[in-house]
Amino acid sequence: MTSNHTTQAEFGSQIRKSPYFASTQRWGCTGYSVYNHMYIPRSFGDPQANFWNLVNEAILCDVAVERQVEITGPDAAKFVQLLTPRNLAKCKVGQCKYVFITSAEGGILNDPILLKLAEDHYWLSLADSDILLWAKGVQIHSGMDVTIREPDVSPLQLQGPKSRDIMCAVFGDWVKDLRYYRFVEYDYEGIPLVISRTGWSSELGYEIFLRDGSYGETLWERLMEIGGPMGLHVGHTSTIRRIEGGMLSYVTDMNVENNPFEMGWDRLVDLDMEADYIGKAALQKINAEGVSQKFVGVEIEGEPFGSPNGQHWPLLIGDTQIGKITSAVYSPRLKKNIGLAMVKVAHTALGTEAVAQTAYGPLAATVVPKPFFDPDKKITTASA
Amino acid sequence: MTSNHTTQAEFGSQIRKSPYFASTQRWGCTGYSVYNHMYIPRSFGDPQANFWNLVNEAILCDVAVERQVEITGPDAAKFVQLLTPRNLAKCKVGQCKYVFITSAEGGILNDPILLKLAEDHYWLSLADSDILLWAKGVQIHSGMDVTIREPDVSPLQLQGPKSRDIMCAVFGDWVKDLRYYRFVEYDYEGIPLVISRTGWSSELGYEIFLRDGSYGETLWERLMEIGGPMGLHVGHTSTIRRIEGGMLSYVTDMNVENNPFEMGWDRLVDLDMEADYIGKAALQKINAEGVSQKFVGVEIEGEPFGSPNGQHWPLLIGDTQIGKITSAVYSPRLKKNIGLAMVKVAHTALGTEAVAQTAYGPLAATVVPKPFFDPDKKITTASA
Repeated sequence: MTSNHTTQAEFGSQIRKSPYFASTQRWGCTGYSVYNHMYIPRSFGDPQANFWNLVNEAILCDVAVERQVEITGPDAAKFVQLLTPRNLAKCKVGQCKYVFITSAEGGILNDPILLKLAEDHYWLSLADSDILLWAKGVQIHSGMDVTIREPDVSPLQLQGPKSRDIMCAVFGDWVKDLRYYRFVEYDYEGIPLVISRTGWSSELGYEIFLRDGSYGETLWERLMEIGGPMGLHVGHTSTIRRIEGGMLSYVTDMNVENNPFEMGWDRLVDLDMEADYIGKAALQKINAEGVSQKFVGVEIEGEPFGSPNGQHWPLLIGDTQIGKITSAVYSPRLKKNIGLAMVKVAHTALGTEAVAQTAYGPLAATVVPKPFFDPDKKITTASA
Repeated sequence: MTSNHTTQAEFGSQIRKSPYFASTQRWGCTGYSVYNHMYIPRSFGDPQANFWNLVNEAILCDVAVERQVEITGPDAAKFVQLLTPRNLAKCKVGQCKYVFITSAEGGILNDPILLKLAEDHYWLSLADSDILLWAKGVQIHSGMDVTIREPDVSPLQLQGPKSRDIMCAVFGDWVKDLRYYRFVEYDYEGIPLVISRTGWSSELGYEIFLRDGSYGETLWERLMEIGGPMGLHVGHTSTIRRIEGGMLSYVTDMNVENNPFEMGWDRLVDLDMEADYIGKAALQKINAEGVSQKFVGVEIEGEPFGSPNGQHWPLLIGDTQIGKITSAVYSPRLKKNIGLAMVKVAHTALGTEAVAQTAYGPLAATVVPKPFFDPDKKITTASA
């Protein structure tokens, strides 16, 4: 039994198609979801095969749904700092930063990757919410001189241990020297790109930001043509691997009701910086009072889950709910059911035992360290 | 041949489920799409059967994806007016208004129904974009004393010629007196509701806004229990009927690149009102200069389309593109392929002939009046 279902959906014009859509169709995509009003490939058949391709070789993923919010103009730096509690004073051109976008109440509105293209030119590479509207709304009475828009930019992810060699084969040996969370602007045979060493896989990997959607199929086919013989497979972001890595999924694991401290990302919040940002006073107050819940890892007993959880699963000790599992999956590498959970602070100690009300019935769950698998801290967490 | 495809999708926890989700599953929903980060039923089998159910009897539709933005507080009226170019000075408590939300550039960010619950209490019942983020962003530096949030409100639509009798049977004879674009707050056997005479069908119909999601299945089952014997069918919003009615679909027919004048909704823009609103200066300028394109109806020749267009179809005269068809479908009532299109103003005259590059090959298309079917202007357009 599983909480998931299969269904049919038409590809209507109400949801946008990525520049790689036709390619993903041609390469056998069997299931899509919707993210930022756009189709995202979610299946090329067996999710465990996709996982092994990712951790042993390399996969190419259409993540054009990571839409960019571009902020340019004389006040761009000041405006971007206004949007996030992370201190960006030392962020250099060519650098990426994992940031939270927070509301006035300190709630998380998104957790994008920030790319600084110039002192007056930034991108926010988004998770699933319309930060374009948020940023444009904030601008209205801000008095700041910025231009905010969604540019024609569509990322691919090329992730896995073989990704470096493949990237070098396609783009040149200079990719070897690209450091973690750095990027370059690059013209590839007339195709305008930004290439970064980032990703949502907890593996060595790169993102390729296509800056002209008309080249989508050309770029995809070229990567597969050169990469295929080197071990590159078509794929999709791996729920198994990202949960192993303890990476957050916006909406699934957190939303506007959560703050960065609950998620364990205190170091992305600078409470003392001189610059003002939205949510500063609220976050100072939350920090002073302490949070009531924290995000933890859990192992869950029972037979291997057939698929990831379709909804949050309550966590109980006796009759008392102490939290909920937000993400859960069977890891074929760890040979365990693993999950991420939000629990009351009194119950966050490693070894805490509870009962999860799962789609497979009640199952024992234990609080454990996360990430579950982290061979190389330097490159496997979104920490730059 | 068709431009649409079928696919499989898991019901992940990344996309929200409506309070009626389990009911729609139980009643045989065979396909969902995603709208405002939530699943929406899109198929219970044959879309033509759904259309005939709607126009001859009545259908019950889960439109919980129409999320509400609630604006309350001392400055609520002023803040809501700031968001829209429609003059709300005469809007009464208990009244609904179809409005555009516009950007500083006059672009359309959404086209919700506004409900005025009290002088200091409003809902915006949204199309597909995060206006919650827009409104909260605008608030930041506005200096206005408002609270903005997404309440626990999930609408159903009960639409079709038999809807009035069914609503009376369920809720009482008072529904007979509910005027177009009016609503009441109503407690139904302990279930808190707002009931309005609105909908997205161009037929007589009602929306039932459930104010406590925990009653979702109870409400759905109760409506079907009483309504079923009276001709109520489970269903979904009808693409056929809404195109016949010339109703707009956000993202499909328009986005931030379009303004209200292009869409033919000049009367929803008050350029002269004293109150300020976002986009006022831009809309004044657009109006003074005139628009370059307008939204029109088209008839398209050829065999009946197998399904609605999966993407925009270019419209050409000779080698010159004069516009694009944004929505197209076969109407089994009119026995014609009909569509909505954005075309350059020089080519908007009724009778203008062009060639549409469709998924079915090039087909002759002619500009015609819209709506295509409008038996009773009083109740079939969103004009209140």
